[in-house]
Amino acid sequence: MNTSLDCIPCILRQTLEAARVASSDPAEHEAFLREVLTWAGKMDLRQSPPAITQQIHHRLREISGKDDLYRAVKDRQNLMAMDMLPDLSARVKAAKNPLLMSARLAIAGNIIDLGVNGKLTEADVHLALKQALTEPLSGDPDRFQTAVREAHSILYLADNAGEIAFDRLLIEQILPKRVTLAVRGAPAINDATCEDARQVGLDQMVEVIGNGSDAPGTILSDCSPEFYSRFRQADLIIAKGQGNFETLCDEPGNIFFLFKVKCPLVSELVHQPVGSHMLVRSRGTQGELAG
Amino acid sequence: MNTSLDCIPCILRQTLEAARVASSDPAEHEAFLREVLTWAGKMDLRQSPPAITQQIHHRLREISGKDDLYRAVKDRQNLMAMDMLPDLSARVKAAKNPLLMSARLAIAGNIIDLGVNGKLTEADVHLALKQALTEPLSGDPDRFQTAVREAHSILYLADNAGEIAFDRLLIEQILPKRVTLAVRGAPAINDATCEDARQVGLDQMVEVIGNGSDAPGTILSDCSPEFYSRFRQADLIIAKGQGNFETLCDEPGNIFFLFKVKCPLVSELVHQPVGSHMLVRSRGTQGELAG
Repeated sequence: MNTSLDCIPCILRQTLEAARVASSDPAEHEAFLREVLTWAGKMDLRQSPPAITQQIHHRLREISGKDDLYRAVKDRQNLMAMDMLPDLSARVKAAKNPLLMSARLAIAGNIIDLGVNGKLTEADVHLALKQALTEPLSGDPDRFQTAVREAHSILYLADNAGEIAFDRLLIEQILPKRVTLAVRGAPAINDATCEDARQVGLDQMVEVIGNGSDAPGTILSDCSPEFYSRFRQADLIIAKGQGNFETLCDEPGNIFFLFKVKCPLVSELVHQPVGSHMLVRSRGTQGELAG
Repeated sequence: MNTSLDCIPCILRQTLEAARVASSDPAEHEAFLREVLTWAGKMDLRQSPPAITQQIHHRLREISGKDDLYRAVKDRQNLMAMDMLPDLSARVKAAKNPLLMSARLAIAGNIIDLGVNGKLTEADVHLALKQALTEPLSGDPDRFQTAVREAHSILYLADNAGEIAFDRLLIEQILPKRVTLAVRGAPAINDATCEDARQVGLDQMVEVIGNGSDAPGTILSDCSPEFYSRFRQADLIIAKGQGNFETLCDEPGNIFFLFKVKCPLVSELVHQPVGSHMLVRSRGTQGELAG
């Protein structure tokens, strides 16, 4: 999807939050925000929001000299999520439909997103989990179950650190031996990289590959040829998070998006309110997004 | 107060909303937002947020050729508020403390603010009124009552259209013959002007003056000499709304601010959560803002 004018204030808010992670000097926050404002005055809105965020973070990395701003945050998020895992695992085992239960929990984990909510607390995550157990799953859960049953090779696109621990639940249900897990090729906000897959033990369960890109989404033209070829060869792609949705929603292919709706623009696109838990097939393969 | 870096995304969101009121052409929205982004890259943050908004609206007026973008909206808001007035008036009469009850309702009316919430509905106003009757009034209500009792001349600074109808309730309680009502000298978002005072009948109750400025606040250096002299001569100033608070909070004088806290920055300044109903004396005259 393109970047809307409505995305701009939100992108600038995220820019300021990132500047404050990169430095404790208010003068540096101001200088960086002013630079991004001037740049934003002429930016290309035909790009997706993650493509724009990627460029802002490139520049922030250049200025700050820090390659992985959110490493400490990601470590904490992984630990927090791993602590919750035994309870959640028991819930999946006890569920009438363990596959859909694990999908619900994996989607709930998508609340751990510092791009959208820089002030996320553990209480927010618990609330999201509680909602995940009761609220409807919007989209195509039936088609998803069929797709999982029929697939031989599944490419699973992770989204955030912390959340990636919850992805274990779903990956266990769809059989790890069919699954390749793709993470970002380099740090992108708090998105998961190989290090996060390792921290939550996913490297022991499935093959883990980096996608070759540091965008907080999956911009195929920015990914490595190896990743692109895996993307095209997979029978089924499971894409977590709004960033992957924003960058792949127009892509043809057997792609299912699992995410929480985090802004009014995506809400409008999927015809579901902000906060909804989505499990929806790519519109690259069908007329309408939401079921 | 100065403009914080955190104000910038919010100001840009308001800019986009205003551009959409001024024109139905998305290309014009984009051109205006880009112009403001570039300008924002070098803007002077030592000004208050209303001073910045004022400049953006000057430019929008220049481009659109429309002097009073929100006239139709303000007419509707006045009508809506006037419809609610008989009920609210009865509540004031039945109250144990009619002065504070009328102050509560006048503060609740401050929710009618298009700067902050462009999508306000009548249901939002009813909810605010309901909250106003039950939630604590933060600040200095006791000192306010004493100040009202002792004042000979009261300058009442109105804020928004619609809200100005609710101000009638408080003005009736503080005795109209002591009161001069000041409105904006020219259109500023949906802030009240002389026309709004006339629409809600306040011109029949009190002397109404324009302040000579089109800022959505009271920037004394931008107001007319006549207004400035009335401001300095008044025994007591009652200032409605966050815009008046943002522009006058450091001003010496016997000023009481009545407003709803609408953003995290003002919330931090007054030590009360967003949504709080404030009745607080100017810090220009005391060490601390909130009581």
